Amino acid sequence: MSHFDAELTALKEKLLLMASRSEATVTYSIRALVERDDDLARGVEADDDAIDRLEIEIDEDSIRMLAKAPLASQLRLIICASKIARDLERIGDEATTIARRSIELNTEPQLKPYVDIPRMAQMAMEMLRDALGAFTSGDTERARQVIPRDRDVDALNKQLYRELASFMIEKPTTITRCLSLMAISKALERIADHAKNVAEEVVYLYEAKDIRHTGSLEIGR
Amino acid sequence: MSHFDAELTALKEKLLLMASRSEATVTYSIRALVERDDDLARGVEADDDAIDRLEIEIDEDSIRMLAKAPLASQLRLIICASKIARDLERIGDEATTIARRSIELNTEPQLKPYVDIPRMAQMAMEMLRDALGAFTSGDTERARQVIPRDRDVDALNKQLYRELASFMIEKPTTITRCLSLMAISKALERIADHAKNVAEEVVYLYEAKDIRHTGSLEIGR
Repeated sequence: MSHFDAELTALKEKLLLMASRSEATVTYSIRALVERDDDLARGVEADDDAIDRLEIEIDEDSIRMLAKAPLASQLRLIICASKIARDLERIGDEATTIARRSIELNTEPQLKPYVDIPRMAQMAMEMLRDALGAFTSGDTERARQVIPRDRDVDALNKQLYRELASFMIEKPTTITRCLSLMAISKALERIADHAKNVAEEVVYLYEAKDIRHTGSLEIGR
Repeated sequence: MSHFDAELTALKEKLLLMASRSEATVTYSIRALVERDDDLARGVEADDDAIDRLEIEIDEDSIRMLAKAPLASQLRLIICASKIARDLERIGDEATTIARRSIELNTEPQLKPYVDIPRMAQMAMEMLRDALGAFTSGDTERARQVIPRDRDVDALNKQLYRELASFMIEKPTTITRCLSLMAISKALERIADHAKNVAEEVVYLYEAKDIRHTGSLEIGR
């Protein structure tokens, strides 16, 4: 393995480390909400700082490597890594929003048992795991199947928004709590959106290579 | 001028075209809100489609050019163009959110004259114009001055959020309208955030070059 290939492998590994950390922040932020655990919520904010640092590192590595990459397929991997890192960084930010809103919610009695939010969280997390699994394995079919699922999460977010809006009109004492739950639902919708972006990057990364062999530059999206 | 330099110039021009279109969507979406003009709001959604197509074109151009770029400074310009295009595309999305919420707001009497929202919009637009001006001129000092202004827009958004939350508790009949205004304020906060990202890209684009001459790869952010 050449020195450059070793650097590419290290870049991929750093990205996967970042991925597992941002996945973890989402899991912890939702657990902090459901179990009303402020310490866990505060931990998410600290983890988010580490994720931000990883994004900067990946960006620096990418730029350094771009100038030396001999092959188009290597260039594409480096670009995709940098774009995926940006999405993962944003996922960490959204998890931080969930954690902060959970801390606010924990200062008041629980409105009702949370059903839709953990379900949305599970859907978004599965999208992210499939997109990252597809990145690791090069399975673009798996990545493609992630993309339409974003619409399901959008629909759940809209439904929950309408329910919470009606609920606060009926019971104005719940307004503060409903607003926090809306913000959490929106954050999950954005996490699913980032997972979809990662899936699109993976399709592009692996399929542009094949397409390029046929002489076309169409990226098919 | 070599063929490659001509391609780089064309890429920059396409990005500036995209920039002026996304600036225009923000202006129109706010005007649609303030002047209660549904047609203008619907026009923003159509413009957003054109902006999305420009982002895909810039991405395709970038990838094609990356494989041929002979110099590190060219690589950097191509990467930055692609990242800035992503931010501009998101600005178009946020303008669409403002336009859609304006249409909703126009179905009910106006809550009160809009003061803070046009002010936030102006701040965000000035940040974007300065960041793009710095991109065109290479004036990184101007780009640097954009970055701290994001905090002012954040503060205004938080203040407006608190005011609207109190207002809806006092007068629950205004809840739907307050929720729409909150969404618009949040969209403006995100537009300012994207303008800050563009400014950071510009600093990186022009200063990494100088820094690279001294042998350091630190990007200073």
